[in-house]
Amino acid sequence: MKTCEQWKVYEFTLNGPTSGNPFTDVTLFATFFFNNHTTRVRGFYDGNGQYKVRFMPEEIGKWTVTTDSNVSELNHQTDEFECTPAEKGNHGPVRVAGQTHFAYADGTPYMPFGTTAYAWCFQSPETQQQTLQTLKENKFNKIRMLIFPKSYSYNTAQPKMYPYEGAPKKVSDTFDSTTWMLKPEDIGFDFSKFIPEYFQHLEKQIQALDNLGVEADLILFHPYDSWGFARMGKKFDQLYLQYVIARFASLKNVWWALSNEYDLMALVGQKPLEAWDFIGKTVQREDPSAHLVSIHNFYDPPQHKDTTKNWYDQTKPWITHLSIQTDNVFLVPKWLDEYDKPIVVDECRYEGNIEFGFGDNTAEGMMDNFYRIVLRGGYATHGETYIDKPNTKRPIWWAHGGKLYGESQKRINYFKQLLEDNGFNYVIPMATEGGHWELAVGESPNGQKAIVYFGENQPEFELLDFLDDDATYTAQLIDTWNMTIKDFPEEINNKDYFHLPRKNYQALLLTRK
Amino acid sequence: MKTCEQWKVYEFTLNGPTSGNPFTDVTLFATFFFNNHTTRVRGFYDGNGQYKVRFMPEEIGKWTVTTDSNVSELNHQTDEFECTPAEKGNHGPVRVAGQTHFAYADGTPYMPFGTTAYAWCFQSPETQQQTLQTLKENKFNKIRMLIFPKSYSYNTAQPKMYPYEGAPKKVSDTFDSTTWMLKPEDIGFDFSKFIPEYFQHLEKQIQALDNLGVEADLILFHPYDSWGFARMGKKFDQLYLQYVIARFASLKNVWWALSNEYDLMALVGQKPLEAWDFIGKTVQREDPSAHLVSIHNFYDPPQHKDTTKNWYDQTKPWITHLSIQTDNVFLVPKWLDEYDKPIVVDECRYEGNIEFGFGDNTAEGMMDNFYRIVLRGGYATHGETYIDKPNTKRPIWWAHGGKLYGESQKRINYFKQLLEDNGFNYVIPMATEGGHWELAVGESPNGQKAIVYFGENQPEFELLDFLDDDATYTAQLIDTWNMTIKDFPEEINNKDYFHLPRKNYQALLLTRK
Repeated sequence: MKTCEQWKVYEFTLNGPTSGNPFTDVTLFATFFFNNHTTRVRGFYDGNGQYKVRFMPEEIGKWTVTTDSNVSELNHQTDEFECTPAEKGNHGPVRVAGQTHFAYADGTPYMPFGTTAYAWCFQSPETQQQTLQTLKENKFNKIRMLIFPKSYSYNTAQPKMYPYEGAPKKVSDTFDSTTWMLKPEDIGFDFSKFIPEYFQHLEKQIQALDNLGVEADLILFHPYDSWGFARMGKKFDQLYLQYVIARFASLKNVWWALSNEYDLMALVGQKPLEAWDFIGKTVQREDPSAHLVSIHNFYDPPQHKDTTKNWYDQTKPWITHLSIQTDNVFLVPKWLDEYDKPIVVDECRYEGNIEFGFGDNTAEGMMDNFYRIVLRGGYATHGETYIDKPNTKRPIWWAHGGKLYGESQKRINYFKQLLEDNGFNYVIPMATEGGHWELAVGESPNGQKAIVYFGENQPEFELLDFLDDDATYTAQLIDTWNMTIKDFPEEINNKDYFHLPRKNYQALLLTRK
Repeated sequence: MKTCEQWKVYEFTLNGPTSGNPFTDVTLFATFFFNNHTTRVRGFYDGNGQYKVRFMPEEIGKWTVTTDSNVSELNHQTDEFECTPAEKGNHGPVRVAGQTHFAYADGTPYMPFGTTAYAWCFQSPETQQQTLQTLKENKFNKIRMLIFPKSYSYNTAQPKMYPYEGAPKKVSDTFDSTTWMLKPEDIGFDFSKFIPEYFQHLEKQIQALDNLGVEADLILFHPYDSWGFARMGKKFDQLYLQYVIARFASLKNVWWALSNEYDLMALVGQKPLEAWDFIGKTVQREDPSAHLVSIHNFYDPPQHKDTTKNWYDQTKPWITHLSIQTDNVFLVPKWLDEYDKPIVVDECRYEGNIEFGFGDNTAEGMMDNFYRIVLRGGYATHGETYIDKPNTKRPIWWAHGGKLYGESQKRINYFKQLLEDNGFNYVIPMATEGGHWELAVGESPNGQKAIVYFGENQPEFELLDFLDDDATYTAQLIDTWNMTIKDFPEEINNKDYFHLPRKNYQALLLTRK
C-alpha cells in the first residue's frame, strides 16, 4: 500500500481533459475517509492533462480516498494509503496553543521568530539560493512572503514568470463596486488561466523552507500591484483562493496571511473593506488542514481619531492570531487581554537605512523591539532594508531576500537561544504597572526563570517590586547588544535595592532559588 | 495717586476683626471699576488683623475700588489707583494664542519649556535658593510645583510649616461619599484656619520665579498626601480654593493645575472623579484674571481597554490646555486635532536613575522627547530624578529642586535657543504620514525655516517628500546631543535623495531659498 508520513503531502494524480479551460470547466474533489470521519478536499489542474488532489493526513493508520468530479474520467476514482508516524524533525503544522501562544501539532513548543522577504521567490536563482542559505545561518523560523509578484519602491522589475496567462497592461485606479474587478479595458491577464509552473516554483520553495524548519507566512493579497492581481474581482479572487489552497494547504509549514495592509488596498481603490469577510470565510472553508490565518493592517489605530482606520475586527472566528504593523509595542499586554489570541507584531520597523520610517531603524532598535514584544507575551518579526546607494541593484532582504548586512539578526538569534536554553517554551508576561516606559518582564512557564529587560531604561538603583513576596532569585546580567552574560553579584527579591550599571540594552536573567 | 504697573499686583489692605475665625466669619470683596466695566474680587485674611484684596489690572488708566463685607469696618471702603504701562521685561500673564499655542498678554511669544520640582518651596532655605539659581542658569520658563506639601518616595519628611493649624494624624484610606471628607476621627488639622505665613512664603517664591521669567504651574491638589489635605471634603476644598486664588491670582506668572494625577486620587480613595467639575468651575469663577487651567492624568488611555481610565473630558470650557502624562509623544498631532487646545506633555519621563519607569530615562531620551513633542506642535516638560545612593538625603530636582546633575537640560537650552534664533515663535507641525516611527518636523510661522528631527531614525539615503513641490532649501546639520551645527553640503527639495551620516539625534535646519 502507498504510505504517507503524518503531516506530509499525500498526492493523488489523475489524468483528465486538456480541452476547454481545465481550471474552470472541471471540478474535482476527493473525500478522505479515516475511521468514522471524512474530509472533502478540492483538487486542482497542474497542467499537461494532470489533475491532482493533495492532503496532509493527521491521523496515523489507513485512509481511503474517493473522488467526485463533473468529468467522468476523474469521477469515482479511489485510492488508499497508510499514514505512518511522523519521523524525527517532523512536528506537523503550527497551531494556536494555550490561547495566546503557538505549538506544533505534536505539542513541540513553537515561538515565532520571523523575518520578512516579500518577493524572494521572484528573484534570480542565485538570490533565492542565497536567501535559503541566510535562513539556514540564522534562527528565524517564519518568513513573510508574497504569492503574487510585487511592485513597490526598490522592486519595480517585472517578474520572470506571471501567475496567469497574459501580459501587463497599465492598471487604472478603480474597480467596479459590485464585482470589485478592474475595468475590462485594463485587464491584461486571463484570471481564469493559471500558469502551473509559477505555483510549482512556489511549492518547491515553501518545501525548501520547511526543510529548514521555517514556516511560510503566505500573503494571499497585497497592494503593491501593477498587474491587476489586486483587482481581479470577487469571482476570480475566489477562483484564485480555491486554486492556491488546493495546491498549498497540504504543505504543513503554510500560514495564510489574507492580505498585507488590507486597509491600504481599500484606500488605493483595489479592494473594499467588505471583501475580507468573504475572503476569510473562503479560506476557512477551502482549507482542510486549518492552517493559521491572519490579516495585516496598514493603519495604526492609536494614532488616528478616525474609526475607519481601526483594525479589522480581529475577533472574527477565522482569524487565528493578530498580525500587526506597529511599533507601539507597549500595547502588547492590552491586545492579549482584549483579543485572547496570539499577538504577532509582524512589522515593527526594519533595521535599515532607506528613506521610509518603517525602514530606517537601527540594529539596536530592531533588537529592542524583539525583547520588548516577546517578554510581554507577543511575537516579533524581523526585516532588513539596507541599501548601498540610492536606486541600488543590490538585493534588499525585506524585498528580495539574499544576504543580511545588518547587526540585529545576531542579537535576535542570541535571544531565541537564551529563551530555549532556559525553558521558555513560551513567555508569561509579568504584569508591571503602566505602559510604554515600563520594563518588559517575562517568566518561564514553570515559574523558575524570569527575564527582566531594561532596554533604554537606565535605573541605577533598582527595585523589582513586582516579584513574588517570598521569592529570592540568583541573577545573571545580560548585555543583549554585546551578547554577554555573567553572574550578578547580588541576590534579587522584591524588597531590596540593587545596583545596575547605567547603560542601554541590559537584561537580568533571574533564577528562583 | 497710588500707581500699579499693568499686570503687577495692586493690593488694598484693611484692618478688621481678629476675634472668632476671620477665615470663615468674614466675607470681603472689592469691586474694581475701569471705564464702563467692573470686576468683583474676593479678599482674604492675612493674619494680624489685616485683610487684603489683590488684583492684577490689565487696562492702563484710572481704576477705582469699593469694598463690600459683612463686617462694617471692611464695608464700603474705597481706593483708587493709576495703572501705568508695563515696563521692560513685563509681558503680562501667559494666555492661549492661536488655538494651540501660547503668548504673553502683550503679544510676546511664549513657548513653555518647563521643568518640575514639586516640593521645592518646602525645602531648606539653601536648597530653595539653589533652585532659583539653577533656574537662572537654564532656560526653563515654567515650573510645576505643589501648593500642599508632598509625601511620596524620597520625600517623606514633615514640612517645616503646615498650611493649616493642627498636627498630623494617621489618615485613613476612605472619605465620606457625600462630603468627600475624611472621617472626623482622622482629622488632625483645622481646615478652616489657614496659616498665612505658609502662603506668604509661597507668594514670595512665586514672585521670585516671576523675576526670573518662570511661570509657576501651581498644582492645587495632589495624591501624595499623609495629612488629609487630599480629603478635606467639598466644603473645605471650596474654602481652600477661594483662599489661594484670592492670594495668588494677582501674580501674573500663576497657572492653575487643578490636580496632579486626579485619577490616582480617585483610585486611592481621596477624591471622586466627579469632584473635578466642581473644582474646575470654582477656579474659573473665583479667578478674576483668567489664568491658564489644566488637569493632569495618571492613566495613559492608549494602554487601557477600560474606559474609566480615559482622560478627564479635556473639552470642558474651564480647561485651557492639556497637561498630559505620557511618553506616547507620537500622538501629539492627534490630540491637537482632537482638542484644538495647546498640548503640554508635562510628564514624559524624567532623566534619572531611580527605580521607577517614570524616572529612569537617559539624558538622550529626555532630550529626544523635547524635540519630538515640540516639532509636532506640542510642549514638553523636563524633570530630573538622579540619586547618588538608595535612601539618599541629597535633594532630587524633581521633588526638592536644588541642583541639576544631568545632561539633558543643556540640550533643552540649546533647542530653545535654536528655535528663538530662527523665528520659531511657535512651531507649525508639518504633516508626515504615520506615527510613532515618523520624523518630527516643524515649520516656523513664516514658512521660511523648518527643523527635521531624526532622533533614533537613521536613514542614510533620505528623501523629504513632504516638502513643498516648488521649494528648495539650504540646510544645516545639527547634532542635537553634541550641540553642533554646520552647513550641509547638499540643497534639499522634495525629489532628490541626500546622504546623511548614520548616527542618533541628528536634525536638519532648513532655510527656504
